[in-house]
Amino acid sequence: MHPMPIIECIPNVSEGRRAEIVDAIAAAIRAVPGVRLLDYSSDASHNRSVFTLAGDPAGVTAAVLAMYERALPAIDLRQHTGEHPRLGAIDVVPFVPIEGITMEGCVALARDVGRQVAERFGLPVYLYEEAASDPSRRNLEDIRRGEFEGLATKMTAAGWAPDFGPAAPHASAGASVIGARMPLIAYNINLATDRLDVAKKIAAAIRHSSGGFRFVKAAGFELKDRGIVQVSMNLTNYEKTPMFRVFETVRREAERYGVQILESEIVGLIPAAALNAAAEYYLQIAGFKADQVLENKLRTAGE
Amino acid sequence: MHPMPIIECIPNVSEGRRAEIVDAIAAAIRAVPGVRLLDYSSDASHNRSVFTLAGDPAGVTAAVLAMYERALPAIDLRQHTGEHPRLGAIDVVPFVPIEGITMEGCVALARDVGRQVAERFGLPVYLYEEAASDPSRRNLEDIRRGEFEGLATKMTAAGWAPDFGPAAPHASAGASVIGARMPLIAYNINLATDRLDVAKKIAAAIRHSSGGFRFVKAAGFELKDRGIVQVSMNLTNYEKTPMFRVFETVRREAERYGVQILESEIVGLIPAAALNAAAEYYLQIAGFKADQVLENKLRTAGE
Repeated sequence: MHPMPIIECIPNVSEGRRAEIVDAIAAAIRAVPGVRLLDYSSDASHNRSVFTLAGDPAGVTAAVLAMYERALPAIDLRQHTGEHPRLGAIDVVPFVPIEGITMEGCVALARDVGRQVAERFGLPVYLYEEAASDPSRRNLEDIRRGEFEGLATKMTAAGWAPDFGPAAPHASAGASVIGARMPLIAYNINLATDRLDVAKKIAAAIRHSSGGFRFVKAAGFELKDRGIVQVSMNLTNYEKTPMFRVFETVRREAERYGVQILESEIVGLIPAAALNAAAEYYLQIAGFKADQVLENKLRTAGE
Repeated sequence: MHPMPIIECIPNVSEGRRAEIVDAIAAAIRAVPGVRLLDYSSDASHNRSVFTLAGDPAGVTAAVLAMYERALPAIDLRQHTGEHPRLGAIDVVPFVPIEGITMEGCVALARDVGRQVAERFGLPVYLYEEAASDPSRRNLEDIRRGEFEGLATKMTAAGWAPDFGPAAPHASAGASVIGARMPLIAYNINLATDRLDVAKKIAAAIRHSSGGFRFVKAAGFELKDRGIVQVSMNLTNYEKTPMFRVFETVRREAERYGVQILESEIVGLIPAAALNAAAEYYLQIAGFKADQVLENKLRTAGE
C-alpha cells in the first residue's frame, strides 16, 4: 500500500557549450530504467548544464553513475572557463524527497551514491546540506569557495578532508558535492505599483539574511515593460516556511505602503504538498490527509 | 507526453447482505488488468454495495462487464428488499473524469458501456446525467421513480423507452442506469457556535434548491457531542462552483450572525484540481498550469 518512492535529482555539470557532450550525457540518463529525465538546459556563459531527473532510489543511483561514466572522460576542468563557480566536472548532485521517502532516506541515498562515486571514479566527494557530516559543511558556497583552481590547497587545510575518496583532487574532474535538500520553489509576487523601493523593502522584511523567514531568499525588481515591481523569491523549505505565510506577510507589508498584491507566479515546478498546504490553511481544513487526494489514492492503492 | 486517461467508476449494486456475493464481485473486478478497486462497502439495511474503481477506458469497461457477468446470476430483484430505491441488480454506474479525459470522453464511454451491457446481457439501459439522451432523463431520481416493481409499467409509458436494450425489464435484474458526472466532494464547515438556526440559514443561503449556488446541496446539523453546528455539503461540480467561493460565502453569511468558522473538513476523496484551485485563488497565482505540479510532470514526462 506504500507508494513507490520518488526522488528528484538535479545534477549540475560543468559543460554548457559543447551540445554533443551534453546530449550524450542526457542519452546516458535516458538509457537507465526506473528513472525519467524531466528536463535539461545549458548556459554557455556559465559553461554549465542542469539536468532534472526523477525516479526510485535504484533508478536515480544508476542514472547518476551513468552520468559520471559518460561525463568524466569528456570534461577537463583544467581547460574549463565560465562565469559560474565550480569545483568539479560533475559539480553538484542534490537528491530531493518528492513522494514516499523521507529526508533521512535521501540523506542515506546521497551517502551511498557519494561512496560509490568515490570508489568507482577515484573522485573526492563532499556531502552537503542535509547530508553534511558537519554543520560547517552544510553550505554549498563554503565547500566550493576557492573553486577547482584552489582545491588542491584547500584539501590540505584542517577540516577540508573529503567525506569519501582520495585526499587530493581528481586531475581533470576535481571533486563533487553530493547531498540532500528540500525542493526549492521559485515564487514571485507582483505588486500593483511601480515603486521599486516598496518591493525592496518587502524583500528585506521577509528574507532570512535580513531578519525574515528562515527559508526565504528574496529581492525586489522592476518589471519595466509592465510598469510594476516584483518581490522575487526562492522558498527553500516549504514545510517549515509555507507559501501562505510568506504571501500573507507580503500582503500586510505592502498595505503599510498603500500597495496591493496584483498577482503571484510560480516559476517552474512545485510539489503538490506545497499547494495543498495553502488550500488547507485558507479553507481551514482540519485533519486533512494526503491520501484523501484522489490521484494519490489511485497511485497507492495496490493489490 | 499525455497522461494515461483515468476514469473513476462507482457502481452501485443491489446486494448488501450476502458478503460472499459482494466479495466475489470485488474479486471479479480485481482480476481485470488496467483497473484498480479502490474501495467497496456494503449497507445491510439498504441491501446495497458501492464499489469505487479507477483505470483507463479499456480497464473500467472490462471491469464493469465482469461485474455484470458475476452479479446477474447471483442477484434476483424479485427477492430483493432494502431501504434504498433501486431499479436493477446493478443499479447505477457513473463514470467520472479524473485525469487526461474530458467529460465528453466519459459520456462516450458511458454510451459505449451501456450499449455493450444491453447487447451482452439483454438488459434495458438508461443513460443519465451528462450522458442523458434528453434533459428530462438527466436526473437519477426521475429515472428510478417507481423502482423495480413499477418498471414494467413505466417502460410502456411515453418517453420511457430505454436508450439501449429490450423494451421490457430483465426478469431478475430489472434495468441499469449508466452515465457520466463530475466527481462529488463531500465538504463540511463547522461553525464556532451551538446555534442550529444559523447553520440552517447558511445552508439555505448557499444551496441550489433554495436559491444558492448551482452545484451545492447543503443542510444544517447539530454536532451535539462537540456543542457546535455544521453546514454539511455536497459539491457536485467543483469547477463551476469552486470550494473557495462556497467557503467565503459561508464565512460572510456567518459573520452576519456574529459567528465564525471553526474549521472545515473533507469527507473521503477530493480531486487534486479542487485543492489547487483554492491555492490559486487565495495566493492569487496567475497563469498556473497543472503540469507545474511536480508529481503531474513525473507522470506525464515521456522518455
